[in-house]
Amino acid sequence: MSNILPFDQHKTDQPSLQPLLDLVAPDMDSLNRLILSYAEAHVELIPKLAHHLIDAGGKRLRPMITLAAANLCDYDGEQHIKVACAVEFLHTATLLHDDVVDESDIRRGRKAARLLWGNQATVLVGDYLLAQCFRMMVETRNLDALDIMSAAAADIAEGEVFQLTLQNNVATTEDDYMQMIEWKTATLFAAAAELGAVIAGRPRQEIAALRSFGRNLGIAFQLVDDALDYGGEQAVMGKKVGDDFREGKITLPVVLSFRRGDEEERTFWQRVIQQREQQEGDLAHALELMRRHGAIADTVERARHYGGIARDALAIFPASPARQALEEAVDFCIARAF
Amino acid sequence: MSNILPFDQHKTDQPSLQPLLDLVAPDMDSLNRLILSYAEAHVELIPKLAHHLIDAGGKRLRPMITLAAANLCDYDGEQHIKVACAVEFLHTATLLHDDVVDESDIRRGRKAARLLWGNQATVLVGDYLLAQCFRMMVETRNLDALDIMSAAAADIAEGEVFQLTLQNNVATTEDDYMQMIEWKTATLFAAAAELGAVIAGRPRQEIAALRSFGRNLGIAFQLVDDALDYGGEQAVMGKKVGDDFREGKITLPVVLSFRRGDEEERTFWQRVIQQREQQEGDLAHALELMRRHGAIADTVERARHYGGIARDALAIFPASPARQALEEAVDFCIARAF
Repeated sequence: MSNILPFDQHKTDQPSLQPLLDLVAPDMDSLNRLILSYAEAHVELIPKLAHHLIDAGGKRLRPMITLAAANLCDYDGEQHIKVACAVEFLHTATLLHDDVVDESDIRRGRKAARLLWGNQATVLVGDYLLAQCFRMMVETRNLDALDIMSAAAADIAEGEVFQLTLQNNVATTEDDYMQMIEWKTATLFAAAAELGAVIAGRPRQEIAALRSFGRNLGIAFQLVDDALDYGGEQAVMGKKVGDDFREGKITLPVVLSFRRGDEEERTFWQRVIQQREQQEGDLAHALELMRRHGAIADTVERARHYGGIARDALAIFPASPARQALEEAVDFCIARAF
Repeated sequence: MSNILPFDQHKTDQPSLQPLLDLVAPDMDSLNRLILSYAEAHVELIPKLAHHLIDAGGKRLRPMITLAAANLCDYDGEQHIKVACAVEFLHTATLLHDDVVDESDIRRGRKAARLLWGNQATVLVGDYLLAQCFRMMVETRNLDALDIMSAAAADIAEGEVFQLTLQNNVATTEDDYMQMIEWKTATLFAAAAELGAVIAGRPRQEIAALRSFGRNLGIAFQLVDDALDYGGEQAVMGKKVGDDFREGKITLPVVLSFRRGDEEERTFWQRVIQQREQQEGDLAHALELMRRHGAIADTVERARHYGGIARDALAIFPASPARQALEEAVDFCIARAF
């Protein structure tokens, strides 16, 4: 999930995030103010460390989905901002703990917080942001929304632990891999979208539709991320290519390449991913194997499959700028792979 | 907070935890069952790691306070068990993250989870337990209770970060130290007690009384813990003495000894605590300085002060076995120091 969306990429014929950005623009100042105010604390180190990550920006894709979903549901209150902020805090807390768990050096194009302030402060500030997420949710006085958020927090943690247990198994099944990203990534997208309908008090069917939209978008998003880490559809050695490879991460391109490979290839994957014994030329060879077996193309193809479900989920809503912006956001996420 | 309460110590003339244990005994089976069921997860590693800490037992002092407070408030529902369980989960999550932050090797007399399963899984299972804590609270459908729990989670995290920022400053003021333990330790005791009255729907004055009881008991508990780490009132070299010293922890005995010492003594404290350059004989010298300045005796004296406030806070409740058990629990916590 380390790739930055190119916000400035909106040529006319390309799917773009611009409609989503335009749709939520009126709420973004309030959202950013709220993010800063809930990152406040008596102990100076907390906002300092939190701001390091918050100020780096990131996409704010998840809270934007909440804002757009509320808009789609004709919500005219103020709680969508607070809920969107809580969504972003849960995400930020996860990123901080992720960096410690993955021993990452870079996050959102900046030095990871853990390198500047240590693992200890990074874990604890993550805890603080998670607690603040729940404080905000409590302030909405909406128990259904709280239920969704607390279940999402548990799922994310479970997905992260699952990822850890799969980490050294290059023979991970595609099913296990999909379950893992469902928990780790898709749950929060699902919650982000669903919450927009929940605070708007919409009927069950619309809540379910937005949950399905978010869930499937989240899966597609993660799959494209996995493909992009190997250069996406282009699959050539590039500047940002190979982070997952070097970390020995089990992602779908690896899962597919291992399954489709012969004995010799499987031995290769075991060495470089499982034992993380990597030599010069290994990444190029991995890319060659992936191309040979269509592993990246099929990862993107699967992303497209889930993207299609996400789009269809919105079909019960009447046409509106919000629906169009959310649909195009799906297309944009897929188009990143090319 | 590493000392185990000796449960079997209940000679007739000594304050004892036995009345509290007897009072909550009818609820403990349900509580333990609930703890096990909410530590469950699809991913096996989660209950495995959680059970390592849960099965080791610990005192369950905080959830027992919730159960006793509910009893004191004549609560006759079932939610006190769930709330007590949530209190224990927040505490357990904190312990897991603490172990990573402190690089602890031992917890509750067992090898710390982080040594068996690594820092990564320990952080993430802590996150899972924290999320489960909130899921349980959401199930009570009680927003006031949720408010208290989420504020406690934020305070604990803030206290832990504060502790980290004080860590290398042996000239920490007593005020800063007290603020730190208020957040880190007292808030959860306060919440544990207050929640018993909140779920029982008691009037504001009784809620405030129980919060005050828990807060002051928590402060006393932490101060006694700090004193015990240097052998308590006996202040002699013992088996369990000196963990805080070796870790260079800023606790009240050190804060007082530094303030009351001369230049040479302050240089000593800077070397052993701030720079953690420790040689043989340093701990014995530290104990000698503490005795000379009455630092441990005064730490216990301050604990007694807060213990007195805790007892008085309960005075608005009519006499009952619950009130007596809670009062004696305060005396017991103080008596540990002797």
